[in-house]
Amino acid sequence: MNIVIVGTGLIGGSIALALRSPKTRIIGVDAKQENLKKALELGIIDEAMPLEKTYGIADLIILSVPVNVTRDILPSILDSIQDNTTVIDTGSTKVGICEVVKSHPKRKNFVATHPMAGTEFSGPEAALKNLFNGKKTIICDKQLSCDSAVKQAEDFYNKLGMSILYMTSEEHDKHIAYVSHLTHVIAYALSLTVQEIEKNDKKNIFEMAGSGFASTVRIAKSSAAMWTPIFRQNSEYLIDSIDKYTAVLQQIKQLIKEDRNEELFDLLSEANKIKELLDNK
Amino acid sequence: MNIVIVGTGLIGGSIALALRSPKTRIIGVDAKQENLKKALELGIIDEAMPLEKTYGIADLIILSVPVNVTRDILPSILDSIQDNTTVIDTGSTKVGICEVVKSHPKRKNFVATHPMAGTEFSGPEAALKNLFNGKKTIICDKQLSCDSAVKQAEDFYNKLGMSILYMTSEEHDKHIAYVSHLTHVIAYALSLTVQEIEKNDKKNIFEMAGSGFASTVRIAKSSAAMWTPIFRQNSEYLIDSIDKYTAVLQQIKQLIKEDRNEELFDLLSEANKIKELLDNK
Repeated sequence: MNIVIVGTGLIGGSIALALRSPKTRIIGVDAKQENLKKALELGIIDEAMPLEKTYGIADLIILSVPVNVTRDILPSILDSIQDNTTVIDTGSTKVGICEVVKSHPKRKNFVATHPMAGTEFSGPEAALKNLFNGKKTIICDKQLSCDSAVKQAEDFYNKLGMSILYMTSEEHDKHIAYVSHLTHVIAYALSLTVQEIEKNDKKNIFEMAGSGFASTVRIAKSSAAMWTPIFRQNSEYLIDSIDKYTAVLQQIKQLIKEDRNEELFDLLSEANKIKELLDNK
Repeated sequence: MNIVIVGTGLIGGSIALALRSPKTRIIGVDAKQENLKKALELGIIDEAMPLEKTYGIADLIILSVPVNVTRDILPSILDSIQDNTTVIDTGSTKVGICEVVKSHPKRKNFVATHPMAGTEFSGPEAALKNLFNGKKTIICDKQLSCDSAVKQAEDFYNKLGMSILYMTSEEHDKHIAYVSHLTHVIAYALSLTVQEIEKNDKKNIFEMAGSGFASTVRIAKSSAAMWTPIFRQNSEYLIDSIDKYTAVLQQIKQLIKEDRNEELFDLLSEANKIKELLDNK
């Protein structure tokens, strides 16, 4: 089986590592020659090839590039593939990507997915064989893909050790705005705020930062190249979530300011309930 | 040596576990009888006693209660202790606590400190022997304590395996507002926002929450009883930090809204720099 991985960074590299087997030929495609070189050196891919050379031989094409690049290249990939090739994307937004191919004659060869795993690192060096194992992935708008393409996507995620959720692109983008994209905005904003306030005295950040700060700000290290287009493509739901979040921040601030300690206590106790929700996960 | 630990929860219990030795008698004081019972059962303390019974025998009194309780009880503790007893608090605010004893004749017996360690759990069951080991602690306004009390505090933190920073109460509260208190506000607000938006569909939180969400929202589980008075006592610096943080959030939102992708990319790249700062820690 010939699997083409477009984008050999954290996500694509980790997929390649998880899939490697004697029966599988992993072909890497990447706009950055240094990524391909590194991926070959690290034994992540079997060979490197320009995208257009892969169309004749690809059984499965996996897109693991920033979501703006996926939007740019997905139509022409569908134009060029053979009838029995399946294309899967792995991006963190779904509506904007599905939009550009919604009337494409080969839309049914494409499966819109989002494997929910990652780290704050990027590039082939960041790839981890077990990044996806035990995690969840989402397949969106399943009915728009043909049965054999869905089956191939399901088999693929089973091989990665992931369990599969199904929903529409709209549902995906709405919920993921809150549980992932907003979380990243929050971390980036915390990083910028603390760097700004401590700019004359950065030593204090290292010295006084506790584990809570470190765990919240961890994802502010995430690739700006990857997250800028995600924020843009999910801007409606994300802006809505930032507005709702800001309103809660203001509510907490007001209670602190006006010394309304009982109400503040009740609100924080309400926030504590996330424990039960997450622990049941 | 008789060490009295007032408050036998996460912090006090962890201190007790780290200090236990044949030469040390650990006396637990707690307003909650069930905490004392649990702490005795778990072998965290040697014996339980009402606070007033400890004054005649205490070499060292450690306060590990919520910061409002510390403010309430610290003056009367200083009224009652013997001349050679040292009192150390472990609260996350310093100005408000130092304020209530600034003119006390026994101010020099008191050392204002903040061991920077914790988890999102609370109570004696949450106590961990190595919670403090390898972490930082802060001693504030050292010159207001007598040399022997400072020495005792230093020896105490050395026994816990902590390294010591020195600063004023004002410096402490200003910096800690950003690297700890704001971080907690952010997590509480994220928890409340997501719970509110997903209230009809909480299953999606469990299913779709990634590791970034989990690590950011983790500290929203932190005890409301402990954090309400911390926010209140550090309200000025904290409100200032919330305002600055909100301004950055709005800036990010505006760039997303207006499709100013290059500026957004630059800003997120700036946020990425927290990596260098934290990795140098």
